[in-house]
Amino acid sequence: MERLIVDMDGVLADVYEQFISFDMLDHGRRKKPSEIVGIPEHEAFENGKSYVRTPGFFRNAPVIHGSQRVLEKLNKKYEIFIVSSAIEFRQSLLEKIEWLEEHFPFITWEQIVLCGSKIMIKGDIMIDDHFKNLDSFEGKTYLFTQPHNQKFNSKDHERVSSWGEIESRLLTT
Amino acid sequence: MERLIVDMDGVLADVYEQFISFDMLDHGRRKKPSEIVGIPEHEAFENGKSYVRTPGFFRNAPVIHGSQRVLEKLNKKYEIFIVSSAIEFRQSLLEKIEWLEEHFPFITWEQIVLCGSKIMIKGDIMIDDHFKNLDSFEGKTYLFTQPHNQKFNSKDHERVSSWGEIESRLLTT
Repeated sequence: MERLIVDMDGVLADVYEQFISFDMLDHGRRKKPSEIVGIPEHEAFENGKSYVRTPGFFRNAPVIHGSQRVLEKLNKKYEIFIVSSAIEFRQSLLEKIEWLEEHFPFITWEQIVLCGSKIMIKGDIMIDDHFKNLDSFEGKTYLFTQPHNQKFNSKDHERVSSWGEIESRLLTT
Repeated sequence: MERLIVDMDGVLADVYEQFISFDMLDHGRRKKPSEIVGIPEHEAFENGKSYVRTPGFFRNAPVIHGSQRVLEKLNKKYEIFIVSSAIEFRQSLLEKIEWLEEHFPFITWEQIVLCGSKIMIKGDIMIDDHFKNLDSFEGKTYLFTQPHNQKFNSKDHERVSSWGEIESRLLTT
């Protein structure tokens, strides 16, 4: 059984929607796509660094469309680990586990990894929205489209823009 | 720089001393070594499963002798990650990070991994007190002596019984 490493923020959890909502409360208007595309999250939102330290930011993130249905199917075919950068933001630790338990109840505690760096993660396939995590991975890599990575491409990583695309890559072959 | 994976409970944190103290409060006497040697932790202490869910169990664990001094030296020579099984016991997540911050302030958040299984961890050297973690590791493995593993040996893992022994293996060559 192949080991599939799945990122959480920006792949399962729609943290962009949280950034945009928090930013809207601060500035009174919703940021346009053109203001955030191609820009790192923490730069696109002036107060982004305080948002990710706000209780509830991770716990209340919306689920990315299609991820529940497809991940449940993948979980029967692959050895799945959800690997999420969390140690930097302490309040996120418990929030992330509770969020997974609520939205992905088929994922067990043995399948969750909370880390800082992902450089020591070993697997066959990785889905992540950050180049830094994919670049150090030895297996097949999928870049999940998010505004911050939209303008950049790498021949080393295959871009996927939805869970439907992941399904067609990993479940129909 | 070689990557060194270091376990927390039973290698840095003296969880046995915590088990013994909690058990002493329950039974009015200190368990003898003969009562715990060669027996899994959760069986050696009747109420062990409730101890590890008690707030403060991990936060107040004593530091294993020599680990601070030797790990600080190792941290200059190796790429170190502290990898600890924690997801099963939620109250332990924050306690473990705070404990590391207090006793091992030279370890940064990027170097901490809280997980369930360790099967997806990649590195050159691993120090752990549990066979299940060492058995799936691809690199060189050191079994750190603890009462539960004292009666068992494996030709695949080199036994070390103190941080002084780790120092002589990993720092003087």
